[in-house]
Amino acid sequence: MITRIIGGIVSTAAILTVGVGCATAQPASDPLPSWNDGATKKAIIEFVTKTTKAGSPDFVPVPERIATFDNDGTLWCEQPMYFQFLFALDRVKVLAPQHPEWKDKEPFASLLKGDLKAALAGGERAMVEIVMATHAGMTTTEFEQIVKDWIAIAKHPKFKQLYTKCVYHPMLEALAYLRANGFKTFIVSGGGIEFMRPWTEKIYGIPPEQVVGSSIKTKYEMRDGKPVLVRLPEIDFIDDKTGKPVGINSHIGRRPIAAFGNSTGDQQMLEYTQGGSGARLMMLVHHDDATREFAYGAESHIGTFSDALMAEAKKNNWTVISMKDDWKQIFAFEK
Amino acid sequence: MITRIIGGIVSTAAILTVGVGCATAQPASDPLPSWNDGATKKAIIEFVTKTTKAGSPDFVPVPERIATFDNDGTLWCEQPMYFQFLFALDRVKVLAPQHPEWKDKEPFASLLKGDLKAALAGGERAMVEIVMATHAGMTTTEFEQIVKDWIAIAKHPKFKQLYTKCVYHPMLEALAYLRANGFKTFIVSGGGIEFMRPWTEKIYGIPPEQVVGSSIKTKYEMRDGKPVLVRLPEIDFIDDKTGKPVGINSHIGRRPIAAFGNSTGDQQMLEYTQGGSGARLMMLVHHDDATREFAYGAESHIGTFSDALMAEAKKNNWTVISMKDDWKQIFAFEK
Repeated sequence: MITRIIGGIVSTAAILTVGVGCATAQPASDPLPSWNDGATKKAIIEFVTKTTKAGSPDFVPVPERIATFDNDGTLWCEQPMYFQFLFALDRVKVLAPQHPEWKDKEPFASLLKGDLKAALAGGERAMVEIVMATHAGMTTTEFEQIVKDWIAIAKHPKFKQLYTKCVYHPMLEALAYLRANGFKTFIVSGGGIEFMRPWTEKIYGIPPEQVVGSSIKTKYEMRDGKPVLVRLPEIDFIDDKTGKPVGINSHIGRRPIAAFGNSTGDQQMLEYTQGGSGARLMMLVHHDDATREFAYGAESHIGTFSDALMAEAKKNNWTVISMKDDWKQIFAFEK
Repeated sequence: MITRIIGGIVSTAAILTVGVGCATAQPASDPLPSWNDGATKKAIIEFVTKTTKAGSPDFVPVPERIATFDNDGTLWCEQPMYFQFLFALDRVKVLAPQHPEWKDKEPFASLLKGDLKAALAGGERAMVEIVMATHAGMTTTEFEQIVKDWIAIAKHPKFKQLYTKCVYHPMLEALAYLRANGFKTFIVSGGGIEFMRPWTEKIYGIPPEQVVGSSIKTKYEMRDGKPVLVRLPEIDFIDDKTGKPVGINSHIGRRPIAAFGNSTGDQQMLEYTQGGSGARLMMLVHHDDATREFAYGAESHIGTFSDALMAEAKKNNWTVISMKDDWKQIFAFEK
């Protein structure tokens, strides 16, 4: 929960063209060319086919074709830590000259010395302090620009690529395939809603109004005769675990028929999706490819894919996507 | 504010075909046949033309064509009181047998005797009690069905028509005209979000995910092995006055370029809309037609159109829609 509050308010991205570049030449009829043939790919195609074919007993009218996607670890990488937290750390460095008191104040003092472990020794409180110091106190327009400026140049420490290049190519194909079949695609993430919105349309083809996430409170006021929304250092909503169905209901107002996640934070979203009548598709991305991306499970400090979650998946017939086995190509920059 | 908390959590509706039935035969090229020719109609058409014409200096790309509409008093009637409050009163009668204690407990005792004035003597607290007793304690799915059942048969006390017939025909035309020109239309209402969503798609062509409103908190839980969201007797958000820009930012994440309202509760939404750069359209419906609908201003207990609001409209160049002069036909049932 501690890490998800951070992941919630803090979480990252950049510039990838949606739906371009495949690992291998495929017949034009293959909607998911970066996916290896097998049960996982088949599950997606069969679901889309049966819910969209007129006369099918599983047919779903277009307005009810709602598909929700977690972001961190589902649409883009979340290691070595949530990109939004890396953004917050960069912001602490940028803001430090305006805060001479940080030199002697934790968690900032340790952060500025480069000692992340000591900085986070303060637990949840330390993380919330970092988030509020970097995400609040400006207008929504100002924050949007700060995110845009960062995402345009900041690079992933391992891949040496813009964060927005660290998106999963097979998932971009899945998004495009669903939309081509009348689905409306939404992000439902523990990440900050206003951290994602500045780039999701360009990267995923998902407009701001289809992004659901964690939030801090905002306040309407006039500044120099101009109406603005000021970001306050107060948590409004955590869109994680049981919060995901709540966020879905608040923002979408319909139960999804397809949901994609990768961690314990997504379990309730998948349960809620499955709880409706008719055909449903629930999928979990499993990070099991240490060579091309990362391999991690319950021991990870983020994106926990626990044994309990795997047991839930089996019990409920959710499809587990093996990054290693099911994805021919993970990132566009691989080739 | 008292009345808007009610209007907020409480607020009404039913079955009108969008865009059908005009007062007078018009050339096929007239997108707003129920509007009289004049400055008001011209303002809408000129705005749509200049923001959608390629090469125009005021051109706006499709994804940024966001138009927001208040509901009570802007898209449908709000007299003799918010329809959602009439719904709440009907619910009190239905639920009374399960609450024998209401016979001796205000505000319910007075309500059940038909004495609305005495019931509301308790002010805001009385209203919140009525709302929570009728809007909370069930799942979101159960509440949706309760609203659907009511809206299918309940009738307006003056017009003797289903509430969903009490929608303004010229506004249905404006909604359809904007959408035909690439605009995405949203409701941004002080009314309850889950009270509106069950019928807005059918009546206005606005899907649940494009409805923003006031809300009570919900909680995710398993009931008999089924995942549900339970409606709690606790206010989550009041989407009125300064809350409207906050709600817009939370749900839409973009500043609208057009906004329609009718009361002091809409002032901040219009200010916020106008605060962006480029062409903007701000409109206020003025209820000045006692013959065909109602005529009321600041003295009304709801939907206040005060002198101060009229002064704001003049100062900011907002267009005031006179129902009497600008609308050839108000309701489809008139003819």
